[in-house]
Amino acid sequence: MSVTFQRITLARRPSGAPVPEDFKLQSDPMPEPKDGEVLIAVTHLSLDPYMRGRMDDVKSYAPSVGIGETMTGQGVGHVLTSNADGFATGDLVTGMTGWASHACLPGKDLRKLDTDLPPSTALGVLGMPGLTGWVGLNRFGKPKAGETLVVAAATGPVGSMVGQLAKAAGLRTVAIAGGPEKCALATDTFGFDAAIDHRAHDTASDLRKAIAEAAPDGVDIYWENVGGKVLEAVLPLMNTHGRIPVCGMIAWYGGVDGDGTDRLPQMWRAVLVKRLQVTGFIIFDHWNDYPAFLNEVSPQVAEGKIAYLEDVAEGLDNMVPAFIAMLKGGNTGKQIVAL
Amino acid sequence: MSVTFQRITLARRPSGAPVPEDFKLQSDPMPEPKDGEVLIAVTHLSLDPYMRGRMDDVKSYAPSVGIGETMTGQGVGHVLTSNADGFATGDLVTGMTGWASHACLPGKDLRKLDTDLPPSTALGVLGMPGLTGWVGLNRFGKPKAGETLVVAAATGPVGSMVGQLAKAAGLRTVAIAGGPEKCALATDTFGFDAAIDHRAHDTASDLRKAIAEAAPDGVDIYWENVGGKVLEAVLPLMNTHGRIPVCGMIAWYGGVDGDGTDRLPQMWRAVLVKRLQVTGFIIFDHWNDYPAFLNEVSPQVAEGKIAYLEDVAEGLDNMVPAFIAMLKGGNTGKQIVAL
Repeated sequence: MSVTFQRITLARRPSGAPVPEDFKLQSDPMPEPKDGEVLIAVTHLSLDPYMRGRMDDVKSYAPSVGIGETMTGQGVGHVLTSNADGFATGDLVTGMTGWASHACLPGKDLRKLDTDLPPSTALGVLGMPGLTGWVGLNRFGKPKAGETLVVAAATGPVGSMVGQLAKAAGLRTVAIAGGPEKCALATDTFGFDAAIDHRAHDTASDLRKAIAEAAPDGVDIYWENVGGKVLEAVLPLMNTHGRIPVCGMIAWYGGVDGDGTDRLPQMWRAVLVKRLQVTGFIIFDHWNDYPAFLNEVSPQVAEGKIAYLEDVAEGLDNMVPAFIAMLKGGNTGKQIVAL
Repeated sequence: MSVTFQRITLARRPSGAPVPEDFKLQSDPMPEPKDGEVLIAVTHLSLDPYMRGRMDDVKSYAPSVGIGETMTGQGVGHVLTSNADGFATGDLVTGMTGWASHACLPGKDLRKLDTDLPPSTALGVLGMPGLTGWVGLNRFGKPKAGETLVVAAATGPVGSMVGQLAKAAGLRTVAIAGGPEKCALATDTFGFDAAIDHRAHDTASDLRKAIAEAAPDGVDIYWENVGGKVLEAVLPLMNTHGRIPVCGMIAWYGGVDGDGTDRLPQMWRAVLVKRLQVTGFIIFDHWNDYPAFLNEVSPQVAEGKIAYLEDVAEGLDNMVPAFIAMLKGGNTGKQIVAL
């Protein structure tokens, strides 16, 4: 076994969009599993937009990553050494390994994977992003057949799950995505009824016109992944008693470009006049739903009824570039890094 | 019977806060009730903040009042002539009479009052404002014993209902009100645990400090009546899984004084990170709950367990000044105009 392992730590807090200098790839002595712990050789790491939030030193739902600490994240790997009941060498497991080649984690924080599907699916369609879409749509979107759903970041692993579940529930589904390729993916692979390229519409009002055409009966559910221009475009199109599950706001993770307009009164007015329900949620509150989700959705993925797409980078060296690109929408599908 | 009646019409659309010239008091021929209709001599008229919204020509949950049309509103009165089954001369009724001395309304849109309480209570504590507080708190505030509630415009007929119901449900209740008299009223008459004078705190951050002292465990429910400075003060104090029923936004009815800051990203971030639920509602969607409300709350009002306060102006001549004053917080308790 190698005597060192590699990990990526937070070198400094980013200002706006992260740059390579905000991270450090370093080697450290291989950790040894204590009693109840398992040493894992990581094979696949997940990259997710929420990680940008963890780089800031502000109060949030989870502690921020400290300077010099390993960047947080989920991974899949094989057990090398087990000091925990129920785990044996060679077992395929998933847990919060962080951005690292190896990790020591308590057995209670790991889940064994027993699936014929590729292990990386545990990070995407059958992992946190898939669960996020399933829980958020059912619990806070409250979809009804005949309604219209608009999803921002629609070809991402959360958005594509939301769109496919809503379509199966009888809703009209409208994707917002960046670029013609992703729009084609939204309709052809993920079955959206329409897809709109937000890059082809510079202003919120231009984008609004395109969404209005694709959603002639208005918008009943707006799945919020991004904030910014898309939110501004959709808000006036919301129908009475519309729902907005707030799952992310990637457009604002790197700060806000103000134009001197306070948009809160307009939002508040829409909430009141249209009786909207806006619900923020964090998937970490909903792990209890994970077995029910797997039970329902795993077979559909195995049967090909729910499509998924992964964008796989290779090697820990490419972790930071892949993360930076993902925050700019450069990936297509769930971003994975294979080690 | 007089051959004319008086009514107040909308003379022009206000810009910001309404002024007397926006209204016109006029005499018109007394209407005659058609088949199924009832002619009412109005004794008490209601003044409510929502009426400001009806004066604007923007899409809302209800049609705006047209230029030259009678200002909309609820009234109580006696039946003069009935062409509707179930109503006889002398019956005490309530309905949407508008700002007028007399009104012809279909019997189906009227409700007979059979109560030992003063008829004006049908416009306040046992009318739309009371129902608003009861429905909104129970359905969207979801109060739990031990939590903390903050109510803006706490001595108004909605806020005082919300505070008293929440206190009875075992919550800590914090009132925001304008001026020391209203603060005393909040604690002494309506039983709030604490009351904060928003006029004594010029900035949102000053106000926030005062609220934080009065709500040491944070805020679980913020009852939104006002928007503006109070919202900005409370938002950072919200607890995880907090609820914000949005019932009104009187601070923004007359337009917004921007300072160049876009407060929407901050709101969105709070919604996400704290998993807040923000729900706009309009009482007109919830008339079905009215019998259940009366059933539960009427006896409590009759027994003095729920206190109420009315601010009564006299005469249609004083309707407009009372409305303008109410929008500035000049009234104390439910604003009524007795004819």
